[in-house]
Amino acid sequence: MYLDIGNALGGSPGLTEDTLAHLDERVALAHDRIEAGIEAEEHGYAALNLPETVDTDEIRAAVEPFGTPSAVLTVGIGGSALGAATISAALADQTDVEAHFLDNVDPEDTAALLDSLPLDDTVVNVVSRSGTTAETLANFLVVREAMTDAGVDWTEQTIVTTGDEGNLRAMAEEEGLPSLRVPDGVPGRFSALSTVGLACGALQGIDIEGVVEGARSEMESLSGSLYDSPAYAYGAVSYALAERGALTNAMMPYAESLEYFAEWFAQLWAESLGKEGLGQTPARALGATDQHSQLQLYRAGPRDKLVTLVRPREREDITIPETDLDGLAYLGGSGLGDLLDAEFEATEASLAAEDRPNVRIEVDAVDAHGIGELIYGMEAACVMYGELAGVSTFTQPAVEWGKKAARGLLGGGDFEEADAVADKQTFLID
Amino acid sequence: MYLDIGNALGGSPGLTEDTLAHLDERVALAHDRIEAGIEAEEHGYAALNLPETVDTDEIRAAVEPFGTPSAVLTVGIGGSALGAATISAALADQTDVEAHFLDNVDPEDTAALLDSLPLDDTVVNVVSRSGTTAETLANFLVVREAMTDAGVDWTEQTIVTTGDEGNLRAMAEEEGLPSLRVPDGVPGRFSALSTVGLACGALQGIDIEGVVEGARSEMESLSGSLYDSPAYAYGAVSYALAERGALTNAMMPYAESLEYFAEWFAQLWAESLGKEGLGQTPARALGATDQHSQLQLYRAGPRDKLVTLVRPREREDITIPETDLDGLAYLGGSGLGDLLDAEFEATEASLAAEDRPNVRIEVDAVDAHGIGELIYGMEAACVMYGELAGVSTFTQPAVEWGKKAARGLLGGGDFEEADAVADKQTFLID
Repeated sequence: MYLDIGNALGGSPGLTEDTLAHLDERVALAHDRIEAGIEAEEHGYAALNLPETVDTDEIRAAVEPFGTPSAVLTVGIGGSALGAATISAALADQTDVEAHFLDNVDPEDTAALLDSLPLDDTVVNVVSRSGTTAETLANFLVVREAMTDAGVDWTEQTIVTTGDEGNLRAMAEEEGLPSLRVPDGVPGRFSALSTVGLACGALQGIDIEGVVEGARSEMESLSGSLYDSPAYAYGAVSYALAERGALTNAMMPYAESLEYFAEWFAQLWAESLGKEGLGQTPARALGATDQHSQLQLYRAGPRDKLVTLVRPREREDITIPETDLDGLAYLGGSGLGDLLDAEFEATEASLAAEDRPNVRIEVDAVDAHGIGELIYGMEAACVMYGELAGVSTFTQPAVEWGKKAARGLLGGGDFEEADAVADKQTFLID
Repeated sequence: MYLDIGNALGGSPGLTEDTLAHLDERVALAHDRIEAGIEAEEHGYAALNLPETVDTDEIRAAVEPFGTPSAVLTVGIGGSALGAATISAALADQTDVEAHFLDNVDPEDTAALLDSLPLDDTVVNVVSRSGTTAETLANFLVVREAMTDAGVDWTEQTIVTTGDEGNLRAMAEEEGLPSLRVPDGVPGRFSALSTVGLACGALQGIDIEGVVEGARSEMESLSGSLYDSPAYAYGAVSYALAERGALTNAMMPYAESLEYFAEWFAQLWAESLGKEGLGQTPARALGATDQHSQLQLYRAGPRDKLVTLVRPREREDITIPETDLDGLAYLGGSGLGDLLDAEFEATEASLAAEDRPNVRIEVDAVDAHGIGELIYGMEAACVMYGELAGVSTFTQPAVEWGKKAARGLLGGGDFEEADAVADKQTFLID
């Protein structure tokens, strides 16, 4: 992973070389803390050790009985889906096995998906650490019934990734389902490089070993100095810019295959850092499309943003045919990718011309190695940001309230949170 | 469209009933300005008159020669794609004709799409007001060549939506292609209810008349008082909250079929209001999925957000099968939609419990009428916000710089902006 922070220096808000030098001292201390956490496999920090601890052979063995299905349907939500979706989308060119995700409880969407899938040749990959995630289990119950209704033996086509105990573990044992274990100490949003994120790719025949290899190379670049570590530097620069008012981080990859990566990043960043009144709001964007949507705001709106532009250095290109259309001769003979790259650089420069901070992240290609680098790099960046900000990076306490309320509303127990829902203040305009 | 602003009152930031009363006076003045603009078909304001001026018969006649194809491929970017995508996604249950969009210049994505489409039964819907939009024309040249290479006569399967002059108009006349006219005075991001946004749906056999009808009903609800007009009230409340620090507007529909609506809203809001250092940054989210991603931040991060929750009051449901899985009996017999609605209300309440402002927008259903209401309602809200903020809602000056730079980089002329790209300040960490 290559990081260029030139356009984060001198802007408004912006950093100076002095700021970097001061930050570097804090990065060294934080790195010691992180390294100790990795070494001791502490909660959360253990995720940064996954390139060493994940066992891809075990994952390959677990999916082996399924051969090559037509489709894989991952049933999970949040971190139980986004890592797998990120890897599958980035490496879609490696496989003919379609990946689908049931990561919401929208009945119309679920019905349409179940209608379109070849259920007799689809492997269901159900993922929940606790085995009680309401959305995931509800969806799984619906899918299981749909398979049975279609005359398919779901027990022959289901793999489970869960903890050591709970519903899914018991079911896997009872039905003799292939299963994988969610590793200890790895929060969902940091689990892309574990069984949670890799099983789907393995079912698709994707090069998951290459993903881990890419992550490992990024792990090796961690050091006590931000000047030597792109991941730490990105985390530290984001933190320092947020402190100076850049409360939004617009993550803008210039590759359709990285659209899910931006979504995965949004969870990582929001849920890890959004605490105690702090945190940088991730805004998902996509280049070049969103130049025609968000760029006006990024360039001329409030000075509360960092724009992160991501691209591969190499990609397969398509040549634009020569044309005599008025004023468009310049396009002919160039590649679509050349146009995309020109727009990338133009966007960077157009932000810089207005002193709007932006950083460039590149990988050699959107391949297994590249997506491994990006995933690990952003995770390490996030942990560094959390250390510098002094927040509990690996918890998500503010999510619990709503879970209890929803459960109470559905008759799953007495919760005062559900009563609060009934007390809603209404001011209706219609 | 129903709007409930109860949870925007008394929060932090929040409004009081006094604030509303003051706002209401300004809304009355702004409404006069907007009504005059609509009456005179002024630039931009003309978009709010589309329910009266759009001619759906003309659109139906233009697409009639194509019958019922397997797929429609819309080639356009920004406002030339997002309105059509919003309507197609919301009403996907009305048609078997697939809608695809080439709204980026990613060569790998374009290649994969062209590979998967039945080119001999796909109608190409190319949309560019000027006929010179680089991304759109480059894509169109590639698509045209792919069709020719596949032995397909592209002139038999192409419809053009463009202005009175330019490349596409000349091509349509020369080749005798069916064509539609982009209406005057309607900026791209406000064109969903015109030929630009409706041609795709018409090609798919979708009820575009119902969409316009829904928009008209929302138009009729505009009045000089925010207490009577959900659209104006939403715009005014968003504006007042932004003034009080809610610089991010998280648009969070609870329906997968409205995911594109959130994306369309993001363009509308960002490009219209992001000016002169002002503007509210749209953050796209999706319920319930993003409760497991963004909610931690929305509830415990900086107090710089308004969360807008959108849902249909009715939807087709799927019953969750009864289960004896440990602790999950409460789910059995409920619908997936009941679960989704419980989560919606739980999220609202969980934000309110922390005094985080949020508003509820509902439509009766995600059908033609409902999506028409939502589109028109958000457009009117945006225009009201722009009037109150005193910005030029209908321009996008900050986008031009980058277009010139990109064109210069590709050898399309001498532009000083391209030279600025070469002068980029680099600070590389790798």
